[in-house]
Amino acid sequence: MSDRVRIGMIGGGQRAFIGAVHRIALRIDDAFDLVAGCFGRDPNNTKITGEELGLDAERCYPTWEAMIEAESKLPEDQRIEAISIVTPNHLHHAPAKAAMEAGFHVICDKPLCISQEEADDLAATVKSTGMVFALTHNYCASPMAREARERIARGDLGTIRKVYVEYLQGWLSDKLEESGHKQAHWRTDPQRSGPVGALGDIGTHAYQLLEFITGMNVASIYARLHTFVDGRALDDDDMVLLEMENGATGTLCSSQICFGRENGLRIRVFGTSGAIEWNQEHPNDLHVTGEDGAVTTVRCATGVVGTASASLTRTPAGHPEGYLEAFGNIYSAFARAVRDKAQPMDHPFPTIEDGVRGIRFIGAALRSSKEDRWIDIPRQEELA
Amino acid sequence: MSDRVRIGMIGGGQRAFIGAVHRIALRIDDAFDLVAGCFGRDPNNTKITGEELGLDAERCYPTWEAMIEAESKLPEDQRIEAISIVTPNHLHHAPAKAAMEAGFHVICDKPLCISQEEADDLAATVKSTGMVFALTHNYCASPMAREARERIARGDLGTIRKVYVEYLQGWLSDKLEESGHKQAHWRTDPQRSGPVGALGDIGTHAYQLLEFITGMNVASIYARLHTFVDGRALDDDDMVLLEMENGATGTLCSSQICFGRENGLRIRVFGTSGAIEWNQEHPNDLHVTGEDGAVTTVRCATGVVGTASASLTRTPAGHPEGYLEAFGNIYSAFARAVRDKAQPMDHPFPTIEDGVRGIRFIGAALRSSKEDRWIDIPRQEELA
Amino acid sequence: MSDRVRIGMIGGGQRAFIGAVHRIALRIDDAFDLVAGCFGRDPNNTKITGEELGLDAERCYPTWEAMIEAESKLPEDQRIEAISIVTPNHLHHAPAKAAMEAGFHVICDKPLCISQEEADDLAATVKSTGMVFALTHNYCASPMAREARERIARGDLGTIRKVYVEYLQGWLSDKLEESGHKQAHWRTDPQRSGPVGALGDIGTHAYQLLEFITGMNVASIYARLHTFVDGRALDDDDMVLLEMENGATGTLCSSQICFGRENGLRIRVFGTSGAIEWNQEHPNDLHVTGEDGAVTTVRCATGVVGTASASLTRTPAGHPEGYLEAFGNIYSAFARAVRDKAQPMDHPFPTIEDGVRGIRFIGAALRSSKEDRWIDIPRQEELA
Amino acid sequence: MSDRVRIGMIGGGQRAFIGAVHRIALRIDDAFDLVAGCFGRDPNNTKITGEELGLDAERCYPTWEAMIEAESKLPEDQRIEAISIVTPNHLHHAPAKAAMEAGFHVICDKPLCISQEEADDLAATVKSTGMVFALTHNYCASPMAREARERIARGDLGTIRKVYVEYLQGWLSDKLEESGHKQAHWRTDPQRSGPVGALGDIGTHAYQLLEFITGMNVASIYARLHTFVDGRALDDDDMVLLEMENGATGTLCSSQICFGRENGLRIRVFGTSGAIEWNQEHPNDLHVTGEDGAVTTVRCATGVVGTASASLTRTPAGHPEGYLEAFGNIYSAFARAVRDKAQPMDHPFPTIEDGVRGIRFIGAALRSSKEDRWIDIPRQEELA
Repeated sequence: MSDRVRIGMIGGGQRAFIGAVHRIALRIDDAFDLVAGCFGRDPNNTKITGEELGLDAERCYPTWEAMIEAESKLPEDQRIEAISIVTPNHLHHAPAKAAMEAGFHVICDKPLCISQEEADDLAATVKSTGMVFALTHNYCASPMAREARERIARGDLGTIRKVYVEYLQGWLSDKLEESGHKQAHWRTDPQRSGPVGALGDIGTHAYQLLEFITGMNVASIYARLHTFVDGRALDDDDMVLLEMENGATGTLCSSQICFGRENGLRIRVFGTSGAIEWNQEHPNDLHVTGEDGAVTTVRCATGVVGTASASLTRTPAGHPEGYLEAFGNIYSAFARAVRDKAQPMDHPFPTIEDGVRGIRFIGAALRSSKEDRWIDIPRQEELA
Repeated sequence: MSDRVRIGMIGGGQRAFIGAVHRIALRIDDAFDLVAGCFGRDPNNTKITGEELGLDAERCYPTWEAMIEAESKLPEDQRIEAISIVTPNHLHHAPAKAAMEAGFHVICDKPLCISQEEADDLAATVKSTGMVFALTHNYCASPMAREARERIARGDLGTIRKVYVEYLQGWLSDKLEESGHKQAHWRTDPQRSGPVGALGDIGTHAYQLLEFITGMNVASIYARLHTFVDGRALDDDDMVLLEMENGATGTLCSSQICFGRENGLRIRVFGTSGAIEWNQEHPNDLHVTGEDGAVTTVRCATGVVGTASASLTRTPAGHPEGYLEAFGNIYSAFARAVRDKAQPMDHPFPTIEDGVRGIRFIGAALRSSKEDRWIDIPRQEELA
Repeated sequence: MSDRVRIGMIGGGQRAFIGAVHRIALRIDDAFDLVAGCFGRDPNNTKITGEELGLDAERCYPTWEAMIEAESKLPEDQRIEAISIVTPNHLHHAPAKAAMEAGFHVICDKPLCISQEEADDLAATVKSTGMVFALTHNYCASPMAREARERIARGDLGTIRKVYVEYLQGWLSDKLEESGHKQAHWRTDPQRSGPVGALGDIGTHAYQLLEFITGMNVASIYARLHTFVDGRALDDDDMVLLEMENGATGTLCSSQICFGRENGLRIRVFGTSGAIEWNQEHPNDLHVTGEDGAVTTVRCATGVVGTASASLTRTPAGHPEGYLEAFGNIYSAFARAVRDKAQPMDHPFPTIEDGVRGIRFIGAALRSSKEDRWIDIPRQEELA
Repeated sequence: MSDRVRIGMIGGGQRAFIGAVHRIALRIDDAFDLVAGCFGRDPNNTKITGEELGLDAERCYPTWEAMIEAESKLPEDQRIEAISIVTPNHLHHAPAKAAMEAGFHVICDKPLCISQEEADDLAATVKSTGMVFALTHNYCASPMAREARERIARGDLGTIRKVYVEYLQGWLSDKLEESGHKQAHWRTDPQRSGPVGALGDIGTHAYQLLEFITGMNVASIYARLHTFVDGRALDDDDMVLLEMENGATGTLCSSQICFGRENGLRIRVFGTSGAIEWNQEHPNDLHVTGEDGAVTTVRCATGVVGTASASLTRTPAGHPEGYLEAFGNIYSAFARAVRDKAQPMDHPFPTIEDGVRGIRFIGAALRSSKEDRWIDIPRQEELA
């Protein structure tokens, strides 16, 4: 009998982008059975999506509340064990909280939610319920991002001095949200996206990746959020100066109006005796500056990578894995955690803490941009 | 009710590489249910593999013959519809032939088989049975390889003059086959690999990709097969001069002793008014030389790609897809062909013809290398 | 009879780096005869350097004042016509001023000088004397930097929205100035370098290139200057947020403690309908994002470049020219200006205005960093 | 008094490409005074060119014979010491021989000449006269080509197994020679270019670089020379299979009809424990595969390069030097050899031996292509 985790999904109906990604991610390593879902507010959307996915019609629910209620009543060996939440940002908190309180593990898209209050409440819920909670900051599950983290953690770079992280896209250079583009529409709508646009959508990815790879917290920021496209309600371009907890400094730029850029998440870290550079668009290459100053391309799945990245690949070196595989790494680690009933060690996936930090970053950036001054972000241990 | 194709697998047990790849490929787009298998000659291997995959124990068969026989007797709505063959080369012909004769569609790993007789027999079987037959030359299913083909077909490059294709690996630089490395062992063993080593394993990939992208047949070759590692029975390095059917010329180099090279399949095509270059290790980039001589990087899933590649991606531009996704493209097209009971148009996957041509290429190369002269390869229409 | 410009040099004796560069630059297109010099404060250094260069011993002067005085008295067809100043920053103003007042044209290394007062005084001197004055911000004379400027000027990118420019080096990661390294020593010494370190040495290059390529002035900056190496007197790392005169925004980072980085001057400009990227370490490639979003590599000396860059190369496409050739472009344009007795059009070389703006940038950055606020930089037309 | 070598030039008048390159090369390190010349068959061309170069009109000679005769009669401290020959191929042998016999050192463009007889005769002349003879295979003087040679010589790659060298251009894709293009005209004319086109013009560069970097001789070749452009008299595309003296094998492709390619000279060498790759279009990067299989970019003028390359650069790391600087390296080494009256050690420049080998390569390739069989090339020691 299969040991797959039975999972239900909230969101991800027709024309959704990230829902389909989550479904590939949960299939790729065969660790889940998707058996239930509420794929949108329109029951017809849920019905059609469920049919396409081969779901039992009775487990395609008109509301997420109905799904949680009904599934809770199913026999233990039939009911879902976990819920994947792939709705717009404003619809993360309520279903995540309800799911955990009903005894379901949760894997949720980023950013965690749309306010500090929601974030703190979810953190409290994770703590009180003891459920596994994963946040799909997928980039940190890319093998070479892991490799970068491992190398920095073991001191290859010496003391970190500079960090430059950027996430540049161009797809919102025009007012795409007025053209009926579903993704653009909710992301630029404060009601669904929350108080920030680009900063929440991609800036939090950059921020999480930065803290993940360096193993350090950002201590203080000076941010300037800006909207270039006339009439857009939320920021579409952000520049942030950073100070890390050890005194290192740097920049974080996230933008959705950099014409022609696709999905340019790139990080560079310089220490006193080495450096790394990683670009998610060419994810199998990690550029490592050694003590002698020369740059070596550390390639995924080769003999020179450490244990962390080696466990995250499925094929030999030279067989490029990418975005979907990294996403799958989070799902597979989540499945293991569900089976083990334990939060995993050594960051196999981002947790509620990453989510809370992302929301604090958003809050600090908003305040810094408004008040035109540096704002501190409490360190993780101060929060716990 | 799900429309997934019920499939069984022959080969791909523990420690196999390509079997796991095929299984991810068939899962990625959710178009199959893997419900039966004979994963190796050792029934215990099959049993364990089947358990890991959550298969019904009764459908884990001790021999492939048993699988074909037993599945044939199951009710039509339960029995497998297709068989995936992922065994070493010498074990392609017999199960493929038997499967088709029993009414199962076949998707088979490359090269097609180990002799011209086997190849011709399989071609005749495909014709007589009318079953769908797909060969997993996965690289041609990479979106940018498709894009290259589309651009050449519509004349962007003018008349093709030069082709350079190479597939360079380094993993057999040492006598790895003596270290207990399963993949190295069978690939260097004439009993299982057939009369060629590197040429069959990777040279046929290069050859198929070349004919696929250019839309032309190779007309004549001058080959030099060589074995660099002492005591190895088969070629580990090949150099081939090519003449295409239109008079274009070029080189095809396949090697497994190019130290450090991972999986370096790269093709360059030059015409009278343009050129293309594609490297499967960075599969999302197609380098296109336009009429003005400048090189543009045509990126996967962007606004400048044609319909052929656009239909082969799952995510927006900048979300790198790779080897497994391309493999999945073949499986998904195979599933559609099974449902439609028709060989698909416009090369969504390599067919028996690609397989036969690959075997003819091997035969010609062996003869050229032995007789030290150019050998013609019949054109496809002459064969049909 | 040769039409070469007779030139003398101040600075650039033994162990100097930039003096030798200037001498190659003036030789490369055969437009100068170097006939006089005061190569250092130590007359013996001057003597030896002069001998190595084949200079007449009588025209190797113990002081720059002596050189200006003596050369002024030579017959018009023998005396130098121009002076090249390659001393540390604190020794630019006095000899440049004296030279122009004595009727010599001046080509001077960057930054222009060490204070706003000096800069304004030099600007006034240029105006009052009418002499040709060139500043060797060499990077803007690289053909592809010119090409970038030409494309932006003709509107290829639409309205500029974002600029990212960085100049990252790693050579001062350690306290190299204590090891007897001549270049490190004066650059970290406020007496000779002026009030800033990295910002003056390389930040001004980045700033000048940015204004050159965009054809726009920086309007306002927020800067954070920092010193990472203990005991160093001047900044070795700078982060600057920018607002351009048209409302575009961006970042300028200059650092000399980015471990392993060599000479990483890179600029990216994004507009509403295109983008460009240029990296001086691979100077023959200009990455141009077109209206369709695809990136084309515009290569030096090919058929797709405009007139500005075409006139700055000496060899056909594919014959890489680099740093020294770009430097030579400035010298050759300076020679033409000397012959034409006119300031050249269309920026063939940076002038006193670029120098003044660089000093204003330094002043604004120092003030911003100290006062923790945005500081405006007057536009060029407001200054004139 | 200057220690510059007085030099005269034969060829290189108006509209010539390579003559101007030679003149920049001889100027760049200030090691020569160009004081005489016969720049073309048309005395008026010589006159104008000489004026532009500031030469004494009396030393601008109507014929090269006149130059050699007249200069021989000048006082020793005035007459030229060396002659640079930059004429088309058919005009190398006679002036080179006459120059050496008159006591002038010679630096000559490649290929050496147009027949084996001429080559042997020049070799005999070098031997009998004892003059310094340099051949401007400039690419081997590029620092990173030197670095590659040094690394291979010290055994970093183990035993060499595979070599792939290519020199691909596209400028002769059309019949440019009919458009009045001077360079195309003589290069496709058997009277001036000799018996081969692309093979002599660029194939010999590739061949020399290969033997230089590997430190080995090519032992045997199988060549196919081809002409793609209708009506062209000489080959414009070549494919050569190689066997090296140690049993390594490989390919050499030279082509001038690879649409869009600029000056694509690239070499890859694979050994039993390492590999290198170098592309002259990005000359400051040497890609080195180490024993661990990872590829490190060894950059020009950094701390990781050996003594050979370090002595060939003028600027610190990150200040790109290119084609002209490499050319200058040959001239500067030639000047030192002239002063030392000795052939230099450790290949600072290609000599008559490289020239003879190039001509033997051409002869063997012609014969192989005609007779459709492998042809041996005698090893250097067998020739001596």
